[in-house]
Amino acid sequence: MAGGGDLKVLGVWTSPFVIRVRIVLNLKGLAYEYVEEDLGNKSALLLGSNPVNKSVPVLLHGGRPVNESQVIIQYIDEVWAGAGPAVLPSDPYERAVARFWAAYVDDKVGSAWQGMLFRCNNEEERAEAVARAAEALQTLEGAFEECSKGKPFFGGDGIGFVDVVLGGYLGWFGAIDRIIGRKLIDPARTPLLAAWEERFRTTEVAKGIVPDDVDKVLAFLQTLLAIGSMK
Amino acid sequence: MAGGGDLKVLGVWTSPFVIRVRIVLNLKGLAYEYVEEDLGNKSALLLGSNPVNKSVPVLLHGGRPVNESQVIIQYIDEVWAGAGPAVLPSDPYERAVARFWAAYVDDKVGSAWQGMLFRCNNEEERAEAVARAAEALQTLEGAFEECSKGKPFFGGDGIGFVDVVLGGYLGWFGAIDRIIGRKLIDPARTPLLAAWEERFRTTEVAKGIVPDDVDKVLAFLQTLLAIGSMK
Repeated sequence: MAGGGDLKVLGVWTSPFVIRVRIVLNLKGLAYEYVEEDLGNKSALLLGSNPVNKSVPVLLHGGRPVNESQVIIQYIDEVWAGAGPAVLPSDPYERAVARFWAAYVDDKVGSAWQGMLFRCNNEEERAEAVARAAEALQTLEGAFEECSKGKPFFGGDGIGFVDVVLGGYLGWFGAIDRIIGRKLIDPARTPLLAAWEERFRTTEVAKGIVPDDVDKVLAFLQTLLAIGSMK
Repeated sequence: MAGGGDLKVLGVWTSPFVIRVRIVLNLKGLAYEYVEEDLGNKSALLLGSNPVNKSVPVLLHGGRPVNESQVIIQYIDEVWAGAGPAVLPSDPYERAVARFWAAYVDDKVGSAWQGMLFRCNNEEERAEAVARAAEALQTLEGAFEECSKGKPFFGGDGIGFVDVVLGGYLGWFGAIDRIIGRKLIDPARTPLLAAWEERFRTTEVAKGIVPDDVDKVLAFLQTLLAIGSMK
């Protein structure tokens, strides 16, 4: 991998927000130091680097912190515009479309994800969050058709902004599938997304980053529930 | 004003999200047609242009819709990079900082704004939302110092991304001041923001766009409460 200057990521291995940043660094071929944080006992470096939100991921570039995953990804894409493929489209209109869908994912899928795992007091509340997730994924099935134009990824031939933003959640989707006893990305209802998931998970840049050990993710969920936060 | 091609904005005059887009169009010196929407009876053009969120603002550029205010602003800044001042900083790190604070405003100030006006069932809940707003504004007082570096605006010498994103709420702040009987942007607690508010409101690009008639805004609030939505 090419050296990216002095790059460090403060993260948690199951965080959708951390995973997407690591995949983008892989896409760009940038070497970085990865520091696993303990959410129950955050490091002084994390607290000092992101005093407002105190959340992962933090990207440190030459010691300067960049916070919030979608901001970090755009930062990487802009600073290393010449390294690896572009994450956001070069056309301003297509860029606006990608930003719109990335925001949609974190708004709708993200809140349903919280509801399915962390903010449900009973099975009825979980079922309600699952229904919201299914509805958002149905909308994203249409977005995939719009963005990919028949190609393998939201980003076209290669992984782009919407791919990494949605792809960050896939490790948790596997755990949710186990909990609810069926596939959240339902091949019958959202065949394009189901095929996309397979493709995304097996890319070189996602391998080893998107968790695939459901037992391990579920064990980590218990830790998170005890801490009371995923950030 | 210079012609911006075929530009149309679907909006509501009190919406913070619409106001910020109109200010950016003014900043860039772009002529546009403004269409006032009735949130109780949205136009077919609005529903067809933003089928996912069905919300204002929508920017139509040569008939193609761009949705979500922060996405629209970046689109305008990128397409008309040569017209008027840049809204986002040219340096990638400063751009990341501006994006971080813009997201913070809509996350913290935006949710408190909803809580103060639309989602409070009683005065206790309103007071709780006011406290959250005050805390966020206190944090933004520090952000102003960081971003402005002693200059008049978050964007430095001129209005930038964080200015228009926060500035969009000012019309409502005036109405909230009336409701709670004191200044939300408290000159004693946040003197930099209080001075910034004065400067921002009186800029040529904000005049006539940021509502200053508190009675009219409060009357509109009753309409919104009857409809049950600000979007």
